[in-house]
Amino acid sequence: MLPRDYAGQNCSIARALELVGERWSLLVVRDCLRGLRRFDELQASLGIASNVLANRLERLVASGVLERIRYQERPERYEYRLTEMGLELRVPLIALMHWGDRHLAPAGPPMLVEHAHCGGEVSEQLVCTGCGEVLEPGEIRSRPGPGHRHPAAA
Amino acid sequence: MLPRDYAGQNCSIARALELVGERWSLLVVRDCLRGLRRFDELQASLGIASNVLANRLERLVASGVLERIRYQERPERYEYRLTEMGLELRVPLIALMHWGDRHLAPAGPPMLVEHAHCGGEVSEQLVCTGCGEVLEPGEIRSRPGPGHRHPAAA
Repeated sequence: MLPRDYAGQNCSIARALELVGERWSLLVVRDCLRGLRRFDELQASLGIASNVLANRLERLVASGVLERIRYQERPERYEYRLTEMGLELRVPLIALMHWGDRHLAPAGPPMLVEHAHCGGEVSEQLVCTGCGEVLEPGEIRSRPGPGHRHPAAA
Repeated sequence: MLPRDYAGQNCSIARALELVGERWSLLVVRDCLRGLRRFDELQASLGIASNVLANRLERLVASGVLERIRYQERPERYEYRLTEMGLELRVPLIALMHWGDRHLAPAGPPMLVEHAHCGGEVSEQLVCTGCGEVLEPGEIRSRPGPGHRHPAAA
Protein backbone atom coordinates (compact mmCIF):
# COMPACT_ATOMS: atom_id res chain seq x y z
CA MET A 1 0.00 0.00 0.00
CA LEU A 2 1.17 3.50 -0.78
CA PRO A 3 2.15 5.68 2.14
CA ARG A 4 -0.52 8.18 3.07
CA ASP A 5 1.74 11.10 3.74
CA TYR A 6 3.36 13.47 1.31
CA ALA A 7 6.87 13.50 2.67
CA GLY A 8 8.74 16.77 2.28
CA GLN A 9 5.68 18.77 1.23
CA ASN A 10 5.32 21.79 3.48
CA CYS A 11 1.94 22.63 2.05
CA SER A 12 -1.57 22.93 3.43
CA ILE A 13 -3.04 21.22 0.38
CA ALA A 14 -0.81 18.21 0.93
CA ARG A 15 -1.66 18.14 4.63
CA ALA A 16 -5.36 18.38 3.90
CA LEU A 17 -5.07 15.49 1.46
CA GLU A 18 -3.24 13.43 4.07
CA LEU A 19 -6.41 13.68 6.15
CA VAL A 20 -9.13 13.48 3.55
CA GLY A 21 -7.42 12.47 0.31
CA GLU A 22 -7.74 8.76 0.75
CA ARG A 23 -10.14 6.89 -1.47
CA TRP A 24 -13.78 7.37 -0.31
CA SER A 25 -12.93 9.78 2.52
CA LEU A 26 -14.25 12.91 0.79
CA LEU A 27 -17.38 11.04 -0.26
CA VAL A 28 -17.99 10.12 3.38
CA VAL A 29 -17.69 13.81 4.25
CA ARG A 30 -20.02 14.68 1.35
CA ASP A 31 -22.65 12.28 2.68
CA CYS A 32 -22.31 13.66 6.20
CA LEU A 33 -22.79 17.18 4.83
CA ARG A 34 -26.03 15.93 3.25
CA GLY A 35 -27.25 14.71 6.61
CA LEU A 36 -26.31 11.03 6.73
CA ARG A 37 -25.07 9.99 10.14
CA ARG A 38 -25.32 6.29 10.66
CA PHE A 39 -23.02 3.55 9.51
CA ASP A 40 -25.72 1.69 7.58
CA GLU A 41 -26.91 4.87 5.86
CA LEU A 42 -23.37 5.66 4.78
CA GLN A 43 -22.76 2.15 3.61
CA ALA A 44 -25.96 2.12 1.56
CA SER A 45 -25.00 5.44 -0.04
CA LEU A 46 -21.42 4.50 -0.81
CA GLY A 47 -21.83 0.82 -1.58
CA ILE A 48 -18.47 -0.11 -0.06
CA ALA A 49 -17.36 -2.95 2.16
CA SER A 50 -17.95 -2.37 5.86
CA ASN A 51 -14.28 -2.78 6.75
CA VAL A 52 -13.33 -0.03 4.30
CA LEU A 53 -16.04 2.27 5.63
CA ALA A 54 -15.10 1.47 9.24
CA ASN A 55 -11.48 2.30 8.46
CA ARG A 56 -12.34 5.62 6.82
CA LEU A 57 -14.66 6.63 9.66
CA GLU A 58 -12.04 5.75 12.23
CA ARG A 59 -9.44 7.91 10.49
CA LEU A 60 -11.84 10.81 10.05
CA VAL A 61 -12.66 10.64 13.75
CA ALA A 62 -8.97 10.41 14.68
CA SER A 63 -8.16 13.47 12.60
CA GLY A 64 -10.98 15.55 14.07
CA VAL A 65 -13.21 15.75 11.00
CA LEU A 66 -15.97 13.59 12.50
CA GLU A 67 -17.20 12.86 16.01
CA ARG A 68 -18.57 9.49 17.01
CA ILE A 69 -21.55 9.97 19.27
CA ARG A 70 -23.64 7.41 21.10
CA TYR A 71 -27.30 8.00 20.37
CA GLN A 72 -28.77 4.86 21.95
CA GLU A 73 -27.77 2.91 25.05
CA ARG A 74 -29.30 -0.58 24.74
CA PRO A 75 -28.03 -1.81 22.46
CA GLU A 76 -25.31 0.81 22.13
CA ARG A 77 -25.54 2.63 18.82
CA TYR A 78 -23.33 5.34 17.45
CA GLU A 79 -23.60 7.94 14.78
CA TYR A 80 -21.09 10.20 13.11
CA ARG A 81 -21.32 13.95 13.04
CA LEU A 82 -19.12 16.47 11.35
CA THR A 83 -17.14 18.65 13.71
CA GLU A 84 -16.79 22.35 12.98
CA MET A 85 -13.54 21.43 11.23
CA GLY A 86 -15.39 18.87 9.12
CA LEU A 87 -18.23 21.27 8.31
CA GLU A 88 -15.66 23.67 6.91
CA LEU A 89 -14.91 21.19 4.13
CA ARG A 90 -18.22 22.33 2.63
CA VAL A 91 -16.58 25.08 0.60
CA PRO A 92 -13.82 23.03 -1.10
CA LEU A 93 -16.32 20.22 -1.71
CA ILE A 94 -18.93 22.50 -3.28
CA ALA A 95 -16.22 24.06 -5.44
CA LEU A 96 -15.03 20.61 -6.52
CA MET A 97 -18.61 19.54 -7.22
CA HIS A 98 -19.24 22.57 -9.41
CA TRP A 99 -16.03 21.84 -11.30
CA GLY A 100 -17.31 18.32 -11.91
CA ASP A 101 -20.73 19.70 -12.89
CA ARG A 102 -19.18 21.94 -15.52
CA HIS A 103 -16.84 19.39 -17.04
CA LEU A 104 -18.04 15.90 -16.20
CA ALA A 105 -21.82 16.00 -16.07
CA PRO A 106 -23.15 15.85 -19.65
CA ALA A 107 -26.68 15.11 -18.35
CA GLY A 108 -26.56 18.13 -16.06
CA PRO A 109 -25.66 18.45 -12.40
CA PRO A 110 -26.82 15.47 -10.34
CA MET A 111 -27.20 17.75 -7.34
CA LEU A 112 -27.88 21.44 -6.98
CA VAL A 113 -26.84 23.59 -4.06
CA GLU A 114 -29.05 26.58 -3.49
CA HIS A 115 -29.75 29.42 -1.13
CA ALA A 116 -32.45 28.09 1.19
CA HIS A 117 -34.07 31.51 1.48
CA CYS A 118 -34.47 32.54 -2.16
CA GLY A 119 -33.67 29.34 -4.09
CA GLY A 120 -30.81 31.05 -5.94
CA GLU A 121 -27.89 28.96 -7.12
CA VAL A 122 -24.85 28.97 -4.84
CA SER A 123 -21.57 30.02 -6.40
CA GLU A 124 -18.10 30.00 -4.88
CA GLN A 125 -16.12 33.17 -5.38
CA LEU A 126 -12.67 34.37 -4.52
CA VAL A 127 -12.99 37.68 -2.75
CA CYS A 128 -10.31 40.10 -1.59
CA THR A 129 -10.65 40.67 2.14
CA GLY A 130 -8.77 43.95 1.72
CA CYS A 131 -10.78 45.80 -0.91
CA GLY A 132 -13.81 43.50 -1.20
CA GLU A 133 -13.41 42.93 -4.92
CA VAL A 134 -14.46 39.62 -6.49
CA LEU A 135 -11.26 38.33 -8.02
CA GLU A 136 -10.57 36.94 -11.46
CA PRO A 137 -7.80 34.34 -11.94
CA GLY A 138 -5.22 36.82 -13.25
CA GLU A 139 -5.59 39.02 -10.18
CA ILE A 140 -4.26 36.48 -7.71
CA ARG A 141 -0.69 35.77 -6.70
CA SER A 142 0.90 33.63 -4.04
CA ARG A 143 3.90 34.21 -1.84
CA PRO A 144 5.55 32.37 1.05
CA GLY A 145 3.71 32.74 4.36
CA PRO A 146 4.86 32.60 7.99
CA GLY A 147 4.91 28.78 7.96
CA HIS A 148 7.16 28.64 4.93
CA ARG A 149 10.49 26.95 5.18
CA HIS A 150 13.07 26.62 2.51
CA PRO A 151 13.04 23.12 1.01
CA ALA A 152 16.70 22.67 1.93
CA ALA A 153 15.87 23.32 5.59
CA ALA A 154 12.93 20.88 5.66
CA MET B 1 -4.31 -1.69 -6.86
CA LEU B 2 -7.66 -0.17 -6.01
CA PRO B 3 -9.96 0.70 -8.88
CA ARG B 4 -9.94 4.39 -9.66
CA ASP B 5 -13.61 4.82 -10.31
CA TYR B 6 -16.42 5.23 -7.85
CA ALA B 7 -18.89 2.74 -9.25
CA GLY B 8 -22.53 3.66 -8.80
CA GLN B 9 -21.84 7.21 -7.62
CA ASN B 10 -23.80 9.64 -9.78
CA CYS B 11 -22.04 12.61 -8.25
CA SER B 12 -19.85 15.39 -9.58
CA ILE B 13 -17.56 15.18 -6.57
CA ALA B 14 -16.94 11.48 -7.25
CA ARG B 15 -16.34 12.16 -10.95
CA ALA B 16 -13.96 14.99 -10.14
CA LEU B 17 -12.03 12.70 -7.80
CA GLU B 18 -11.84 10.04 -10.50
CA LEU B 19 -9.85 12.55 -12.54
CA VAL B 20 -7.80 14.31 -9.91
CA GLY B 21 -8.20 12.27 -6.73
CA GLU B 22 -5.32 9.95 -7.29
CA ARG B 23 -2.30 10.32 -5.11
CA TRP B 24 -0.11 13.30 -6.18
CA SER B 25 -2.48 14.45 -8.94
CA LEU B 26 -3.79 17.52 -7.10
CA LEU B 27 -0.26 18.43 -6.07
CA VAL B 28 0.77 18.35 -9.72
CA VAL B 29 -2.11 20.72 -10.47
CA ARG B 30 -1.08 22.91 -7.52
CA ASP B 31 2.46 23.18 -8.89
CA CYS B 32 1.19 23.99 -12.37
CA LEU B 33 -1.00 26.74 -10.89
CA ARG B 34 2.18 28.15 -9.29
CA GLY B 35 3.84 28.29 -12.68
CA LEU B 36 5.85 25.08 -12.93
CA ARG B 37 5.69 23.56 -16.40
CA ARG B 38 8.55 21.20 -17.00
CA PHE B 39 8.92 17.61 -15.97
CA ASP B 40 12.15 18.21 -14.07
CA GLU B 41 10.69 21.22 -12.23
CA LEU B 42 7.68 19.19 -11.18
CA GLN B 43 9.82 16.27 -10.14
CA ALA B 44 12.07 18.50 -8.04
CA SER B 45 9.04 20.06 -6.34
CA LEU B 46 7.24 16.80 -5.66
CA GLY B 47 10.20 14.52 -4.99
CA ILE B 48 8.52 11.52 -6.58
CA ALA B 49 9.77 8.81 -8.91
CA SER B 50 9.73 9.76 -12.58
CA ASN B 51 7.47 6.86 -13.53
CA VAL B 52 4.84 8.00 -11.01
CA LEU B 53 5.05 11.58 -12.24
CA ALA B 54 4.92 10.46 -15.89
CA ASN B 55 1.83 8.40 -15.14
CA ARG B 56 0.04 11.27 -13.39
CA LEU B 57 0.90 13.73 -16.15
CA GLU B 58 -0.32 11.30 -18.79
CA ARG B 59 -3.66 10.89 -17.02
CA LEU B 60 -4.09 14.61 -16.44
CA VAL B 61 -3.43 15.20 -20.15
CA ALA B 62 -5.84 12.41 -21.15
CA SER B 63 -8.58 13.88 -18.97
CA GLY B 64 -8.15 17.40 -20.33
CA VAL B 65 -6.71 19.04 -17.22
CA LEU B 66 -3.24 19.58 -18.75
CA GLU B 67 -1.90 20.07 -22.25
CA ARG B 68 1.45 18.75 -23.35
CA ILE B 69 3.13 21.30 -25.56
CA ARG B 70 6.42 21.07 -27.44
CA TYR B 71 8.53 24.10 -26.65
CA GLN B 72 11.77 23.02 -28.31
CA GLU B 73 12.46 21.03 -31.47
CA ARG B 74 16.02 19.72 -31.27
CA PRO B 75 16.05 17.90 -29.04
CA GLU B 76 12.29 17.73 -28.65
CA ARG B 77 11.20 19.06 -25.28
CA TYR B 78 7.72 19.31 -23.84
CA GLU B 79 6.08 21.24 -21.11
CA TYR B 80 2.73 20.94 -19.37
CA ARG B 81 0.21 23.72 -19.19
CA LEU B 82 -3.13 23.82 -17.46
CA THR B 83 -6.11 23.98 -19.78
CA GLU B 84 -9.01 26.27 -18.94
CA MET B 85 -10.57 23.24 -17.24
CA GLY B 86 -7.41 22.73 -15.22
CA LEU B 87 -7.15 26.41 -14.28
CA GLU B 88 -10.65 26.17 -12.83
CA LEU B 89 -9.34 23.83 -10.14
CA ARG B 90 -7.85 26.95 -8.57
CA VAL B 91 -10.94 27.61 -6.46
CA PRO B 92 -11.35 24.16 -4.87
CA LEU B 93 -7.59 23.99 -4.31
CA ILE B 94 -7.40 27.39 -2.66
CA ALA B 95 -10.38 26.45 -0.47
CA LEU B 96 -8.70 23.17 0.48
CA MET B 97 -5.44 25.00 1.18
CA HIS B 98 -7.17 27.47 3.48
CA TRP B 99 -8.84 24.60 5.31
CA GLY B 100 -5.40 23.07 5.83
CA ASP B 101 -4.01 26.45 6.88
CA ARG B 102 -6.68 26.80 9.57
CA HIS B 103 -6.42 23.31 10.97
CA LEU B 104 -3.09 21.79 10.03
CA ALA B 105 -0.56 24.59 9.96
CA PRO B 106 0.53 25.33 13.55
CA ALA B 107 3.49 27.39 12.28
CA GLY B 108 1.19 29.47 10.09
CA PRO B 109 0.30 29.18 6.41
CA PRO B 110 3.23 27.99 4.29
CA MET B 111 1.81 29.95 1.36
CA LEU B 112 -0.40 33.02 1.15
CA VAL B 113 -2.71 33.84 -1.71
CA GLU B 114 -3.35 37.52 -2.15
CA HIS B 115 -4.94 40.06 -4.41
CA ALA B 116 -2.16 41.17 -6.74
CA HIS B 117 -3.52 44.71 -6.90
CA CYS B 118 -3.93 45.59 -3.22
CA GLY B 119 -2.15 42.75 -1.40
CA GLY B 120 -5.33 41.80 0.47
CA GLU B 121 -5.80 38.22 1.54
CA VAL B 122 -7.96 36.11 -0.77
CA SER B 123 -10.97 34.41 0.79
CA GLU B 124 -13.38 31.94 -0.79
CA GLN B 125 -17.01 32.69 -0.21
CA LEU B 126 -20.29 31.06 -1.07
CA VAL B 127 -22.48 33.64 -2.73
CA CYS B 128 -26.09 33.41 -3.87
CA THR B 129 -26.31 34.16 -7.59
CA GLY B 130 -29.97 35.05 -7.08
CA CYS B 131 -29.89 37.69 -4.36
CA GLY B 132 -26.14 38.29 -4.10
CA GLU B 133 -25.94 37.49 -0.41
CA VAL B 134 -22.79 35.92 1.08
CA LEU B 135 -24.06 32.66 2.52
CA GLU B 136 -23.49 31.08 5.88
CA PRO B 137 -23.53 27.29 6.24
CA GLY B 138 -27.09 27.09 7.58
CA GLU B 139 -28.47 28.98 4.59
CA ILE B 140 -27.58 26.33 2.04
CA ARG B 141 -29.57 23.30 0.97
CA SER B 142 -29.16 20.76 -1.79
CA ARG B 143 -31.69 19.07 -4.02
CA PRO B 144 -31.55 16.70 -7.01
CA GLY B 145 -30.57 18.39 -10.27
CA PRO B 146 -31.32 17.57 -13.92
CA GLY B 147 -28.61 14.91 -14.01
CA HIS B 148 -30.01 13.09 -11.00
CA ARG B 149 -31.10 9.52 -11.33
CA HIS B 150 -32.58 7.31 -8.71
CA PRO B 151 -29.96 4.87 -7.37
CA ALA B 152 -32.16 1.91 -8.36
CA ALA B 153 -32.18 3.14 -11.97
CA ALA B 154 -28.40 3.56 -12.14
